[in-house]
Amino acid sequence: MSKVFVLAPDSFKESMTAKEVCEAMELGIKRAIPDAKCIHVPMADGGEGTVQSLVDATGGSLIEKEVTGPLGTPVLAKYGILGDGKTGVIEMASASGIHHVTKDTKNPLITTTLGTGELMRDCIERGITNIILGIGGSATNDGGAGMARALGYSFLDQDGKELPLGGGFLNQLDRIDTSAVLPQLKDVSILVASDVTNPLCGERGASAVFGPQKGATPEMVATLDNNLRHYGGIIKKQLGIEVIDVPGAGGAGGLGGGLLAFTKATMRRGIEIVIEYTGLEEQLKQADYCITGEGGIDFQTKFGKAPYGVAQAAKRVNKEMKVVALAGHVGQDVETLYDEGFDAIFGIVPGAAQLETLLAQGKENVARTSESVARLLS
Amino acid sequence: MSKVFVLAPDSFKESMTAKEVCEAMELGIKRAIPDAKCIHVPMADGGEGTVQSLVDATGGSLIEKEVTGPLGTPVLAKYGILGDGKTGVIEMASASGIHHVTKDTKNPLITTTLGTGELMRDCIERGITNIILGIGGSATNDGGAGMARALGYSFLDQDGKELPLGGGFLNQLDRIDTSAVLPQLKDVSILVASDVTNPLCGERGASAVFGPQKGATPEMVATLDNNLRHYGGIIKKQLGIEVIDVPGAGGAGGLGGGLLAFTKATMRRGIEIVIEYTGLEEQLKQADYCITGEGGIDFQTKFGKAPYGVAQAAKRVNKEMKVVALAGHVGQDVETLYDEGFDAIFGIVPGAAQLETLLAQGKENVARTSESVARLLS
Repeated sequence: MSKVFVLAPDSFKESMTAKEVCEAMELGIKRAIPDAKCIHVPMADGGEGTVQSLVDATGGSLIEKEVTGPLGTPVLAKYGILGDGKTGVIEMASASGIHHVTKDTKNPLITTTLGTGELMRDCIERGITNIILGIGGSATNDGGAGMARALGYSFLDQDGKELPLGGGFLNQLDRIDTSAVLPQLKDVSILVASDVTNPLCGERGASAVFGPQKGATPEMVATLDNNLRHYGGIIKKQLGIEVIDVPGAGGAGGLGGGLLAFTKATMRRGIEIVIEYTGLEEQLKQADYCITGEGGIDFQTKFGKAPYGVAQAAKRVNKEMKVVALAGHVGQDVETLYDEGFDAIFGIVPGAAQLETLLAQGKENVARTSESVARLLS
Repeated sequence: MSKVFVLAPDSFKESMTAKEVCEAMELGIKRAIPDAKCIHVPMADGGEGTVQSLVDATGGSLIEKEVTGPLGTPVLAKYGILGDGKTGVIEMASASGIHHVTKDTKNPLITTTLGTGELMRDCIERGITNIILGIGGSATNDGGAGMARALGYSFLDQDGKELPLGGGFLNQLDRIDTSAVLPQLKDVSILVASDVTNPLCGERGASAVFGPQKGATPEMVATLDNNLRHYGGIIKKQLGIEVIDVPGAGGAGGLGGGLLAFTKATMRRGIEIVIEYTGLEEQLKQADYCITGEGGIDFQTKFGKAPYGVAQAAKRVNKEMKVVALAGHVGQDVETLYDEGFDAIFGIVPGAAQLETLLAQGKENVARTSESVARLLS
């Protein structure tokens, strides 16, 4: 019987999408075992690449849409609809990510998640009732108020005037008007892919922990934290929903909290969602071997990265299954991963080289290493 | 039963001796399989590192001796005596190598193999009757006349005067005086480790092919080739030995020919000699797996490099034995080696890095990769 390989890598950032990694792995494996059966299950962990991988894994489609960027100016964003036709997948960073601002323009007092909400709305208006939302890489600290506004919520001051966009104005919030909320929203489930357990406010809150990397000075952190606390208080008072101290509410500048307050949201680790929606475990049931990988692998991989989730899934399905990981960069203390379901971890780099060269040669390096792995396994 | 690994790498040049590579491999293998049995058989291919590896593999000793360098000035050279106490091992380059000259001083008209002969003489005077002589890396083009002189031969001109050292004066050779030759020499076998099949003279001869890299201009090549032809003629006439067109006589600036003419010499591929004297095949008979490697591995490895010899030996002993090679640099068309006894070839480099960094981290990189290989094999 021909051997079955499940190929379930994450992307190699700046070099290959997860799907391209699968293709390179198959190329190498087939050189070693021409009749090997290779099942491609491109992975992601809820961060960058999640839309692409889920679309690729399920045979879905990508939709491009111009939305409001974090600074209020238009940006071209993308989201996906999975092969089932019923599930949307959005990365908040596509609309509201840190890559849309520069060192000079980043300012968490004014950046907004409005564009993320616009993508959600577009998705909902197509009849989608299930949305996977990856919330990594944000440029924002607005508690998800912008997102909610795109869905029809209004954030009003004492004079009944709509607040300006951005976390810097939430201290002026007097009440939330829900009269124009998109009617379909109540039937939409949002699955929030987040590995963050930070609460909305306080020392471990969104502003204190993630604000500085978005450009917040210590004074701005204090302002933003106070504003989110005020905002959380109004949400509690008016909607009866607690967000200030809820684990995960602090993700993406409080977008986590906003989703919990304004939508039917559930939070889960990104990799768990990806594993479920790609049907990875079902595929693994027919597999002899599992090959995973990521651009970089080190001891932190076990804190929720895709290869870790894949290794765990493979061992759940069959604890004798060999799980091999390939990486462009094999980092610190990788040997600690051998207790976490990994059988072997190989670097793909052929020798001393500059990063740019390696990024360009990624496919051949993955293919060559996969060939040797397949030869050892067979 | 605990698994037995034969570890038979060549050195990783500028990073680790073959013995150090063995140690790093064992470190990694033991992390994966604590009760693995690791048999160290440090390898070489007759080139640089052959003395060290054979001494290490057999538990022999190193001897340092000041001899005449290629330019006539003293150099400190080393040779080895194997663990059997009866076999000497010399690299001609240690006494007469290209690393002893500079861009400005290299001059194949005057460079001499005298120092190589002095090492041989020292060896013979200790009662050694079997010498392995690696002839790579020479700075010389003297047909081995210097070497022979150290053993008691005299090269005289028409006036009965000893010729100056160097291939540039061999045109003045009138006769060879053998009256003072070391009496023990007739009982000494010289095993010449050489992969070169070039004849002494002509288009494919020592001067034409290897002269330029030793500093010969086109005029010097013509002079040296004529001189070696004259020298070969005298050898033929006086000693009855043909060297001019003999394959291998052109190795090391004609030292190959000189050895054939003046000693009881046999030529063999370096790797074959190393495999025999390390007893590699005997060790492989008890092995489950064989791990080899070298600083660089590419399609040329199959033209007589140590890992190739090791892979071939392993498959001769047991064609089912898995042979894995590790390399600091995995080069062009390595997949062609899969038809030559190699089962898998892995790079040890963990990511984008400068060569100097990699050379310094060699042991950990070998250990880490060996660990993963052992985990896959077990």
